[in-house]
Amino acid sequence: MSHNSFGHLFRVTTWGESHGPALGCVIDGCPPGVPFDLTLVQEALDRRRPGQSRFVTQRREPDQVEVLSGVFEDDRTDGLKTTGTPISLMIRNTDQRSKDYSEIRDRYRPGHADVTYDQKYSIRDYRGGGRSSARETAARVAAGAVAQMVLDQLFGNVAIRAGLVSMGPHDAEARDWDVARQNPLLCPDATAAKAWEAVLDDARKSGDSLGGIIEVECTGVPAGLGAPVYSKLDQDISSALMSINAAKAVEIGDGMQAARLSGTSNADEMRMDGDKIVYQSNHAGGILGGISTGQPVVARVAIKPTSSILTPRRSVTAQGEEVDIVTKGRHDPCVAIRGVPVVEAMMALVLADHALRHRGQVGTFVR
Amino acid sequence: MSHNSFGHLFRVTTWGESHGPALGCVIDGCPPGVPFDLTLVQEALDRRRPGQSRFVTQRREPDQVEVLSGVFEDDRTDGLKTTGTPISLMIRNTDQRSKDYSEIRDRYRPGHADVTYDQKYSIRDYRGGGRSSARETAARVAAGAVAQMVLDQLFGNVAIRAGLVSMGPHDAEARDWDVARQNPLLCPDATAAKAWEAVLDDARKSGDSLGGIIEVECTGVPAGLGAPVYSKLDQDISSALMSINAAKAVEIGDGMQAARLSGTSNADEMRMDGDKIVYQSNHAGGILGGISTGQPVVARVAIKPTSSILTPRRSVTAQGEEVDIVTKGRHDPCVAIRGVPVVEAMMALVLADHALRHRGQVGTFVR
Amino acid sequence: MSHNSFGHLFRVTTWGESHGPALGCVIDGCPPGVPFDLTLVQEALDRRRPGQSRFVTQRREPDQVEVLSGVFEDDRTDGLKTTGTPISLMIRNTDQRSKDYSEIRDRYRPGHADVTYDQKYSIRDYRGGGRSSARETAARVAAGAVAQMVLDQLFGNVAIRAGLVSMGPHDAEARDWDVARQNPLLCPDATAAKAWEAVLDDARKSGDSLGGIIEVECTGVPAGLGAPVYSKLDQDISSALMSINAAKAVEIGDGMQAARLSGTSNADEMRMDGDKIVYQSNHAGGILGGISTGQPVVARVAIKPTSSILTPRRSVTAQGEEVDIVTKGRHDPCVAIRGVPVVEAMMALVLADHALRHRGQVGTFVR
Amino acid sequence: MSHNSFGHLFRVTTWGESHGPALGCVIDGCPPGVPFDLTLVQEALDRRRPGQSRFVTQRREPDQVEVLSGVFEDDRTDGLKTTGTPISLMIRNTDQRSKDYSEIRDRYRPGHADVTYDQKYSIRDYRGGGRSSARETAARVAAGAVAQMVLDQLFGNVAIRAGLVSMGPHDAEARDWDVARQNPLLCPDATAAKAWEAVLDDARKSGDSLGGIIEVECTGVPAGLGAPVYSKLDQDISSALMSINAAKAVEIGDGMQAARLSGTSNADEMRMDGDKIVYQSNHAGGILGGISTGQPVVARVAIKPTSSILTPRRSVTAQGEEVDIVTKGRHDPCVAIRGVPVVEAMMALVLADHALRHRGQVGTFVR
Repeated sequence: MSHNSFGHLFRVTTWGESHGPALGCVIDGCPPGVPFDLTLVQEALDRRRPGQSRFVTQRREPDQVEVLSGVFEDDRTDGLKTTGTPISLMIRNTDQRSKDYSEIRDRYRPGHADVTYDQKYSIRDYRGGGRSSARETAARVAAGAVAQMVLDQLFGNVAIRAGLVSMGPHDAEARDWDVARQNPLLCPDATAAKAWEAVLDDARKSGDSLGGIIEVECTGVPAGLGAPVYSKLDQDISSALMSINAAKAVEIGDGMQAARLSGTSNADEMRMDGDKIVYQSNHAGGILGGISTGQPVVARVAIKPTSSILTPRRSVTAQGEEVDIVTKGRHDPCVAIRGVPVVEAMMALVLADHALRHRGQVGTFVR
Repeated sequence: MSHNSFGHLFRVTTWGESHGPALGCVIDGCPPGVPFDLTLVQEALDRRRPGQSRFVTQRREPDQVEVLSGVFEDDRTDGLKTTGTPISLMIRNTDQRSKDYSEIRDRYRPGHADVTYDQKYSIRDYRGGGRSSARETAARVAAGAVAQMVLDQLFGNVAIRAGLVSMGPHDAEARDWDVARQNPLLCPDATAAKAWEAVLDDARKSGDSLGGIIEVECTGVPAGLGAPVYSKLDQDISSALMSINAAKAVEIGDGMQAARLSGTSNADEMRMDGDKIVYQSNHAGGILGGISTGQPVVARVAIKPTSSILTPRRSVTAQGEEVDIVTKGRHDPCVAIRGVPVVEAMMALVLADHALRHRGQVGTFVR
Repeated sequence: MSHNSFGHLFRVTTWGESHGPALGCVIDGCPPGVPFDLTLVQEALDRRRPGQSRFVTQRREPDQVEVLSGVFEDDRTDGLKTTGTPISLMIRNTDQRSKDYSEIRDRYRPGHADVTYDQKYSIRDYRGGGRSSARETAARVAAGAVAQMVLDQLFGNVAIRAGLVSMGPHDAEARDWDVARQNPLLCPDATAAKAWEAVLDDARKSGDSLGGIIEVECTGVPAGLGAPVYSKLDQDISSALMSINAAKAVEIGDGMQAARLSGTSNADEMRMDGDKIVYQSNHAGGILGGISTGQPVVARVAIKPTSSILTPRRSVTAQGEEVDIVTKGRHDPCVAIRGVPVVEAMMALVLADHALRHRGQVGTFVR
Repeated sequence: MSHNSFGHLFRVTTWGESHGPALGCVIDGCPPGVPFDLTLVQEALDRRRPGQSRFVTQRREPDQVEVLSGVFEDDRTDGLKTTGTPISLMIRNTDQRSKDYSEIRDRYRPGHADVTYDQKYSIRDYRGGGRSSARETAARVAAGAVAQMVLDQLFGNVAIRAGLVSMGPHDAEARDWDVARQNPLLCPDATAAKAWEAVLDDARKSGDSLGGIIEVECTGVPAGLGAPVYSKLDQDISSALMSINAAKAVEIGDGMQAARLSGTSNADEMRMDGDKIVYQSNHAGGILGGISTGQPVVARVAIKPTSSILTPRRSVTAQGEEVDIVTKGRHDPCVAIRGVPVVEAMMALVLADHALRHRGQVGTFVR
């Protein structure tokens, strides 16, 4: 069962509400002997952290991570290393301002889980969205940083890089992942990144919000990860990305456009370069029949516009009254921006899990 | 672990290769006392069966299903009923023509799992694609029919209906699911269905193939199925649909288009009708925060064009030689057509599993 | 979830009722490239098969196994090999005599699952015990034979040998596993085996039955299998053996007697032999802290006396009437005898699963 | 996978090393709306806590539990309640004295996981046994207290009571569970409890230790929990109890003695009392065919004598030197005593998990 866990051999369980005392994750199945660098976890969290520019929520959470178990160092281990036991990571919540949410306790915000959560469980920590808050993704990002350490240990050069490639109706053209790390919109196209700032300011000022599309590219993934039927690599990527708050679609490779192609144009032809297979294109996004090809793994996820907006929307209360709702508070005008490091983390989790599963069943990795 | 299983409480494991003696599935966790009608399983298989029109592969498989366990009838049970034990369903393979595939034993067909399967496992039943063949979906369709029986027992009126809504660059406009059951393209738009016949004939005659998009709508799904984090209903739908052969993208509700909307236009506003919440739109596709709203659950999956085409494509052999490959044999010019009943089956599996999981954790269903 | 599955990476799902058309199993996660010998599966089934001596049930089932998927042979694979896909094994039921059971349809046999199964599921295939029949263990034995092939491939010399070491109040002294394969009581002590024949004849003639204890020893198991907390090797052995019909207790190493020892006498002291650790005793049964030591893994399981006896016992019916029950039919006077190959099979399943899990998490095996 | 998790629908994952910063657990799948009383968790921990009498380790840990998520209270929930999200419980380690263990860093203590853990993982937090320490059971006890709250909510009167029924070669006769809570040996026989104090003092003074047997009885368990094949209630109890540190055997009902009985004497005969089935005995320990009968569920677990003793034992070092080892430090002369609340906790976990699983598959409970 997996209400709050993700993965099989490299398995992450997250816990915590937006306005509870803390949130965190337990990573079970991490191989022993992996060099563990807590600063990498903290850096990943810092990239996701709110309050870093005017384009994201002004909630201020230092998001200081603490490692509670699963790593060890003595003079013989040459630095902190994983031990093969569960790695427990915790982040205390500090800037909670629960009062912000008191007035919407019974008012179901359109686009939010308020109404469905209440219908399912009949009880709800409504403060800040409780368990349904995007704050849960901090735990994913922390776990993803550990997954990346495992990938580094196993394969050496797996690079997982994401960025915002569409914002509202606007599309980026370039895919320069270094650029994506250098602008506040995390967009891999410097020109678009610049132009979109005004678009986003407009949305925010008019009390509205925008959706966006995040693209992720993973290089250095060996051929052979995945399985033909219900553990397809693309299936698990799809599950991972769709589990992110506000996700509404996932694409692998050409994605929706693949349905519009003919068989001749969609084929990724192959040639040899010495004893190495070289694909002439990558419509498939690095996955054939559910198994990685060795090409870059490419996926995209569509994030809907932030539901918390200042424009009044018609809604109802828990008591069945009709109301108009305006969601005040500190909200991202385009949540897709802060989704970028979350997408990277989820990809790392999928790849680390599949790497261990492959090793378990097959034993060795394809060079 | 789930290499060949899908679901948790209602769990299906499929087995079988395209040209082995048989294929089938084991359904574990089916509730006891559910009326079991084998003719419904057979009818579902008949809808998926090849050889029914010139638009699908001419391979002829009677696909006669046999139930081997898990159901019982005596004069007191009033017809065949499930007993709560594993339901084993088997379909013998009869029209295998393994010779068709002998010449491509070492020749990797572009777009197929041939190369990646070999790279992963180093051994492969290459006949007809082996385990990677779309023939595996017969087992899914059989299991899906049983899942539908469970949904009928639990909720009475869950209708899961899919159809081909795009073929190549062409889009259907109407969504008449009855129409979708009456034309060979399984398209819910009668006009498009007619027009697309010529398009598909052209593709086939020119040795090419077309992709397509399948849409599915599930009505009668109660509010409350799913969970906020890693068992989101949309996440599991995404996993289910992406596990179908040739799938490259999955959308929930507005899907990719949601990313292009503003927050004000994306919000599904709510009003009351008596003590019932009535949504003013369904951009969300019936799911908020990973939990069903009670509105129709709507999803789409993009299917790439059939990779087996008569137009030569450049490829390589297992021995590292460069070759040109033409895939002869009996192939679907648009595999998306035969994917329609598979999509319906996967949706039934996801809903039945979530219904039991909800009952386990929460105990009662939301009216 | 695991209602009918056992194991994680090497995962077996069994299905089938005693008097349904067939029974079988699906093995998921078997590594690819393992030489597959169907005659070894058949031989294991033959050892378990009823009707082989006057000491076991006279039901005659040829128990002919059929392999339906997951193995492949061509001129290049050098014999039949596993492919890494699910291995489906099926045994048709042939000698069912359902009439034998008609009169006990509503009469709850003491010691049987009749009453509890009815209370749980409200519907029951009562013929021969249905899913609760020991006939289900045929599927375990078939799967265990495949697990043994995996162990042979991975480790070369894992020998799993069991025998009946107590029958009723009588204890065997010798542990000669070759002897256990040569007498109809499967007892590793030739003298006891001979003496017990009369005891068993007496029990049978007086309409009674006897319990027994099965011991199993696994040699060649490398150090390092298992895990410290909830995947302890002894925990999973315990689960495996207690899942066998009529099992009431499981012991590892000294078992219950360990509780009666002092710390000084229970310690398995260690010395070096070259660079190899040599234990001076094996009170622990080859497992320390849930992880194998490299010593022989030793376990025992207590099997209660056959519940189906000719001596009348007081019971009740499904309708709440008080009755006296005599269980006619073809029953084993000591079911523990036929449990011996089942115990061997379950041990092979546990070891194969843990071997793959270790390989997945840690990567290499301890020499 | 379950390296550090236990259960399926009610699933507990524990984390933490003996001398790390903290330990804890995450409970996933707990139903919403269950009244949550943290003092009950603390009381359970206090019963397990070291340092309470001269018969247990003098390590002093306040074992103060903190709840970090999954519960909520406002003026409408009428006290703290579970919300259906993961419940994270944490206990800080305070009295660690890591220096105690420095000299045995490389010296493998006989009977401990030191050697096997090293062989498996090649790296080890040796301080106090790290993850293999019995300190991990604090997390189980905390989780078990929550499981008990769920059982109270579902069934009202499930009482789970355990005690020490054998110590070394000595057996208790009485089974007065109230008495078991009132003496420092947690023995349900007041006379034995008194007599054993001297025995235990002797063992401790002579630098030795004693094993023991814990018996647990669960009353109020409804009929119908469990399943016929690989989710037998007794199988999961067996797995639960064998996962406890130092456990070497598990018995259900008559346990090992069942193997020594004849079929006539082992049968639990049935009579009617009104419309209720009344069993005339309980050899089966409340479980038939893997499913609860409604009688008290009775199990026993054998705990080996504490391995940490002051009497020198021969052993080896990680470097392959032969040494004699004396385990100083603060150790329990009979760890079975402190195992009593752990056994109760594990039983609660098994029962809560099976209750939810039954509800998921079957829907209602048997009255």
